[in-house]
Amino acid sequence: MNEAFFIASSFLCSMVDLFIYNSLTRTKEKFTPLHKQFVGMYVCGPTVYNFAHLGNCRTFVTFDTVYRYLTFLGYKVRYVRNITDVGHITTEFDEGVDRIGAQAKLEQVEPMEIVQKYTTYFHDMMREFNNHPPSIEPSATGHIMEQIAMIEEIIKNGYAYEVNGSVYFDVKKYKDVFPYGELSGRNVDELLENTRELDGQEEKRFFADFALWKAASPEHIMRWPSPWGEGFPGWHLECSAMSTKYLGEEFDLHGGGMDLKFPHHESEVAQNSACCGKAPVRYWMHANMLTVNGQKMSKSLGNSFLPHELFSGTHALLEKGFTPMVVRFFMQQAHYRSTLDFSNEALKASEKGFERLMQAVEKAGSLTASDSSSYDIAALEKNCFEAMSDDFNTPILIAHLFEAVKVINSCLDNKIQLTLTDIERLQKLVNGFVFEVLGLQAEVSGASNDISNDLMQVIIRLRAEAKTKKDFATSDLIRDELKAINIQLQDSKEGTTWTHEK
Amino acid sequence: MNEAFFIASSFLCSMVDLFIYNSLTRTKEKFTPLHKQFVGMYVCGPTVYNFAHLGNCRTFVTFDTVYRYLTFLGYKVRYVRNITDVGHITTEFDEGVDRIGAQAKLEQVEPMEIVQKYTTYFHDMMREFNNHPPSIEPSATGHIMEQIAMIEEIIKNGYAYEVNGSVYFDVKKYKDVFPYGELSGRNVDELLENTRELDGQEEKRFFADFALWKAASPEHIMRWPSPWGEGFPGWHLECSAMSTKYLGEEFDLHGGGMDLKFPHHESEVAQNSACCGKAPVRYWMHANMLTVNGQKMSKSLGNSFLPHELFSGTHALLEKGFTPMVVRFFMQQAHYRSTLDFSNEALKASEKGFERLMQAVEKAGSLTASDSSSYDIAALEKNCFEAMSDDFNTPILIAHLFEAVKVINSCLDNKIQLTLTDIERLQKLVNGFVFEVLGLQAEVSGASNDISNDLMQVIIRLRAEAKTKKDFATSDLIRDELKAINIQLQDSKEGTTWTHEK
Repeated sequence: MNEAFFIASSFLCSMVDLFIYNSLTRTKEKFTPLHKQFVGMYVCGPTVYNFAHLGNCRTFVTFDTVYRYLTFLGYKVRYVRNITDVGHITTEFDEGVDRIGAQAKLEQVEPMEIVQKYTTYFHDMMREFNNHPPSIEPSATGHIMEQIAMIEEIIKNGYAYEVNGSVYFDVKKYKDVFPYGELSGRNVDELLENTRELDGQEEKRFFADFALWKAASPEHIMRWPSPWGEGFPGWHLECSAMSTKYLGEEFDLHGGGMDLKFPHHESEVAQNSACCGKAPVRYWMHANMLTVNGQKMSKSLGNSFLPHELFSGTHALLEKGFTPMVVRFFMQQAHYRSTLDFSNEALKASEKGFERLMQAVEKAGSLTASDSSSYDIAALEKNCFEAMSDDFNTPILIAHLFEAVKVINSCLDNKIQLTLTDIERLQKLVNGFVFEVLGLQAEVSGASNDISNDLMQVIIRLRAEAKTKKDFATSDLIRDELKAINIQLQDSKEGTTWTHEK
Repeated sequence: MNEAFFIASSFLCSMVDLFIYNSLTRTKEKFTPLHKQFVGMYVCGPTVYNFAHLGNCRTFVTFDTVYRYLTFLGYKVRYVRNITDVGHITTEFDEGVDRIGAQAKLEQVEPMEIVQKYTTYFHDMMREFNNHPPSIEPSATGHIMEQIAMIEEIIKNGYAYEVNGSVYFDVKKYKDVFPYGELSGRNVDELLENTRELDGQEEKRFFADFALWKAASPEHIMRWPSPWGEGFPGWHLECSAMSTKYLGEEFDLHGGGMDLKFPHHESEVAQNSACCGKAPVRYWMHANMLTVNGQKMSKSLGNSFLPHELFSGTHALLEKGFTPMVVRFFMQQAHYRSTLDFSNEALKASEKGFERLMQAVEKAGSLTASDSSSYDIAALEKNCFEAMSDDFNTPILIAHLFEAVKVINSCLDNKIQLTLTDIERLQKLVNGFVFEVLGLQAEVSGASNDISNDLMQVIIRLRAEAKTKKDFATSDLIRDELKAINIQLQDSKEGTTWTHEK
């Protein structure tokens, strides 16, 4: 660790050892991308047949944070997150309900209208949470050809068979050659005992076989022609086809919610291996679930609230609303591999913590420099990097950032002395980790597109900086320029405030 | 016209005669949808290889207003607007440049990353303008199969031929049977004189033939397998394939910018007719272009500014920024079939008008009722409906809304008396037409006197100052602080500009 870190972050990735808990090996491994400084990352996106729920949001905040940290370290990341817009199965081993088709019937519209409605909601929520858009956001319906081509290849390689216009993956044959169950740790023979008879089961050679292509019944709306007749692709296939298309046959990182490990991710591995002869993913990451007051969130328990209900506080379980940034911060206060429990008390505590953090970040702009430092900022910086490099440990990072809050407040109270270099280093540290890595934003009052307050904070910080350096020409210039546009500054013990007369 | 109008707007569509200027017949025609109370509407969306420009935005505000008025009248509208994410031609008769591929090379990313970046920008701008999302937003790459199927049908019907892996539409053969040129009013024989020799021309049987499928050269990235080898669809085909898929072989309304009339829309008609034996669209609507200070907007003239530059006022031609709602209102003050000229004076006039309108709408909530009315609110209501029903005449509607402003102010000054019933009717009238039909929104506080650009100018000056003094710590700090609030600076010979991504 040295000062060059923040100066040339594009080289950080070759200097910082990043460790990731790999679900495949169940150990923390040092992260080494396939191609130096480039990372290919795939995350399973939402099925857009209903409002994105909070569990989804947690997963996407998690991988947004991963994406941000990798980018912060200087990696050029191609982040692919799909939209599942073909309605799919709910059960482990077979197609039950076409969810998008079912919702379309309920709302009396075309399936693609359902897709549009809930994709828009999903994107709105991602924006609220300040998640970066992925680099590519491919959709299942947009990649039917690629999926058909992959099925043809799997059939050619002997790992799939056609029955009555449907194509199934041949798990028995596959597991003789490849380590089926390696990712999820499931043993096929044990699974057999828990299986019920379902639609399509009679077509399969083995209960664990899964559909690559399903023949469409006459009333099924979403259907495409294929070498096996009209139908639609199986649920697992799209991710294999799209990750291969945009990231290659082998890529670095694959993420998703823990509930997708089996059967979805296990099937993805099987499909890719059967098609291309090798496992596709080097590091698998799984985000844990969330609970409400200690219980699983579910509609039947009545404790399932949607993101916008959480923001507005309009669900019976919520005492008040919490802003998207408070919820984001709250999510990051737990490690992504731990469950996260929503409760009014925990959210209110996060709200207070978030405010304390943001206030300190703002005040970091007006620290006064001393001749020497009585605090080791470099060590603090090192701690922040080490936390994030230890499997993206955001709660530990946040603990260190609260240490930075203490340092800022102590420096303002003259209990700690910092040199100008250390002040600048501290500022870059908090700005970098709070805004860029954690992706938090100062809450804007009311106007979502009014950035005046943010800009004024930048100006106030520059003026404080100039004063610290005794550069009065600059601080006077700032005062005059602001006066010219009718802005007055007021300095007080609490800091500098501003007023604008029209 | 009667009071039931606002009470049960779902029946309005059967009571109000709507007239639409049909580009196909060049006359205003009474609008009668194919299926009572249902409207199928297709609008050509953006090609996402660059920032959506203001001309695009005008087109989409126009058709958003059409969509809103149809919905207001009680029609159930399926509004399909596509995303063109296959890079396409620029010239009239042939494929010149793969724009998305070219931009991908420039930005050193995958074509689909270009698509994602500019689709996100486009959606952001649509949201700023308060345009409703369409019911379905299909993409060209997502409908390659449908396009291939359509080409096969056109070949089968004898209106297309294959040469070296490309397929061309046979205009000569088509025009013997169908009225080619009917929509655009172009005469093929006259066109011949202005045609240059271009890539692919030698493969065509007739100069006006156009590509349905192009064989991909080895370096072409976006490519799909087809019965004619690897390639990509022609520009015009996607809209034919997607409108047919989501709206049927014949549907009510098709909109787009006037520049798309030829060759794009003419080719769409030809493709659909050749495939399905009949013209697809019953009412064609074309939105006119916009100019800047009386000149065509173009990059080479230096008068081309982007939507976000207009909002922030960061283009040299702009004296200040204008909020999205002021720009929307400004656009609606011209009829969609007229050209619209951007100038600081015109925009400032709209800004004042918009404020006056919104203030009155707010005050309409606090009128005092009298025993009798001295003003005919029913007549005003009738005028508003008649304006919009006369080919969506928004400038006339706005004139009537300013009459409503006068009524509201006169009622507050006790110069006009209104009964409670009339007050409620007036309130419903202004709320309905201002918010629902025109899609205007009250500006969030501060935004209308947005000082962010002034503040940015102060910051840009401080940064230039710091650079001059070789105080790179400060100039870096400014860059980082701005980055943290999603502001990017761009330095060029003309000076520094800024963009704010939310």
